[in-house]
Amino acid sequence: MPAVIDDLVPRVLRGDVRGVARALRIVDDRGADHLALLKALHPHGGRAFVIGVTGTPGAGKSTLVDRLVEALRARATKVAVVAVDPSSPFTGGAILGDRIRMQRHFLDEGVFIRSLATRGHLGGVSRSAGDVIRVLDAAGFDVIVVETVGVGQDELEIARYAHTTVLVTAPGLGDDIQAIKAGILEIADVFAVNKSDRDGADGAVRDLEQMIALGRETGAAVRGQGHSAAAAHGPAAGGAVAGEWTPPVLKTVATKNQGVTELLAACDAHRQWLADTGAGTRRLADRLAYEARAIFRGALVREAEARLGVVLLEAIARVERREEDPYTVSEALVSRALAGARA
Amino acid sequence: MPAVIDDLVPRVLRGDVRGVARALRIVDDRGADHLALLKALHPHGGRAFVIGVTGTPGAGKSTLVDRLVEALRARATKVAVVAVDPSSPFTGGAILGDRIRMQRHFLDEGVFIRSLATRGHLGGVSRSAGDVIRVLDAAGFDVIVVETVGVGQDELEIARYAHTTVLVTAPGLGDDIQAIKAGILEIADVFAVNKSDRDGADGAVRDLEQMIALGRETGAAVRGQGHSAAAAHGPAAGGAVAGEWTPPVLKTVATKNQGVTELLAACDAHRQWLADTGAGTRRLADRLAYEARAIFRGALVREAEARLGVVLLEAIARVERREEDPYTVSEALVSRALAGARA
Repeated sequence: MPAVIDDLVPRVLRGDVRGVARALRIVDDRGADHLALLKALHPHGGRAFVIGVTGTPGAGKSTLVDRLVEALRARATKVAVVAVDPSSPFTGGAILGDRIRMQRHFLDEGVFIRSLATRGHLGGVSRSAGDVIRVLDAAGFDVIVVETVGVGQDELEIARYAHTTVLVTAPGLGDDIQAIKAGILEIADVFAVNKSDRDGADGAVRDLEQMIALGRETGAAVRGQGHSAAAAHGPAAGGAVAGEWTPPVLKTVATKNQGVTELLAACDAHRQWLADTGAGTRRLADRLAYEARAIFRGALVREAEARLGVVLLEAIARVERREEDPYTVSEALVSRALAGARA
Repeated sequence: MPAVIDDLVPRVLRGDVRGVARALRIVDDRGADHLALLKALHPHGGRAFVIGVTGTPGAGKSTLVDRLVEALRARATKVAVVAVDPSSPFTGGAILGDRIRMQRHFLDEGVFIRSLATRGHLGGVSRSAGDVIRVLDAAGFDVIVVETVGVGQDELEIARYAHTTVLVTAPGLGDDIQAIKAGILEIADVFAVNKSDRDGADGAVRDLEQMIALGRETGAAVRGQGHSAAAAHGPAAGGAVAGEWTPPVLKTVATKNQGVTELLAACDAHRQWLADTGAGTRRLADRLAYEARAIFRGALVREAEARLGVVLLEAIARVERREEDPYTVSEALVSRALAGARA
């Protein structure tokens, strides 16, 4: 292990804030030492409770996360927030104006806030989120809240790193919500209908409960993959019934701090269910398998591209000039990269 | 070239609907013949005008696309719609309820509608979208509208395949919109504030125009990459000024068919600007380079995983059982996959 890592690991493990920040920079930069650091921290993880908060833009997710953090801090829990930011894939600029609202937590040593830009990470956003969670987990944060702004596939995959995934929606967000719910339904453990002082809140709750009940039909397949959310029995009354988890649908008004305690209680109940039924162990195994594959893929592409070097760049330039089609070029590059590898 | 492809290519090129559907199935399945098909179609592309429509859920994007298609059909253009659907990454189920609204186009032979699920495609969603666009382009569709529901990185990247990208938003969708706009601003060529009969429409237009003006600051960097959207000069009056494109911000009410003609005219103006300034040629070169890299990465991972076979599965199982950390396992797998390849 490099000396710098040798020195840094104990600092991270005792939760030294500057050490944690340093470790996160190393992980971000993906330099020579980052793998050594992540390997060294790996055995020390698994204690933090990771809550994923995702959902539709305009649902007031950030305010709700803000309130959740307040509620968690009220019971003296060390909290980290990882905000996944759909920044530009082109210039890499990350702007998250509403993070400003969380500045009041900045002076609170028990709250650590980290923005994670989604720009072109090899191996996907979820890979980066996994590495950041590994560092924060080793650093002794009790709860890590991972907040995603987007609703694309990358954001859905981040839910794989969470013990409990909260989907936030709000009344009156329109038709597209239906499509999004279809994708997210299977990964959400708790639903929050925020802004529930608006018209249509009861309808939104009913719609979600119906979709959860429909989820029973695909329950068997989903259970086989170790995901419990869609494997609900009966109407969505919330909580565990006969070994199954039925995702509760809660009404919240984050701006008025209504329903936040109940939301946190639902997360706690889900955590308890994971522990009691062994579902948590299964979920961890799934996550590790998923993560191993993502890490392998990212490293494979990075290493192959580094070895191909100028050959890769020249091949791409030929496609740019329309001298060759991208499929033929890709075949030749793959053959060259894997040359000599045995089956 | 396999005989089946030999037979299919001319059918696609003359726009035979069943041939096109067959070709799209082959592309989807990624079987033995799909590369041969895509290679054969590659030289025949480049005629279609590709309009990307993206934006925030709840903005009424699908209705607006529906109206755009009507307007395009009114001038007798052959139109294809590719709807990118954020379906479940877990079970692969794709549900897009609002596609039902487009059924009235199903009897219209000039409109071809295709849903594209975003589930776990190697090489990303954008890879699949690129292949589908290549087939439809070769089949002689005049306009291909690519509609994305999500706002994650994958969805942003699909904009790389569009000549003109329309960002749809609506008044009153909340704070998250700010964050999303930051990411999308640089890739949008035309902005539509839909539902503009609602309160706050003028404010939404003003906000966007301010962000476009701010975009001038990063203009130089963005120009270097061949993207014009953020390289605007002066207030957002719309249209081209001194070789630069200033994204216009238009008000629409899709449900009342208001502003749709103007929106289409703005897309036409942008297309003309691309042709007049050479920006279109630059954009095509960028897209091809991007696509070549994505195709290479997807093929590399697929081929390496196939060759590793059971070795890969056993290594992942060791991580699952916590016998090894995913980083160490990944290093060993990459070494094995690339063994023998020269620098």
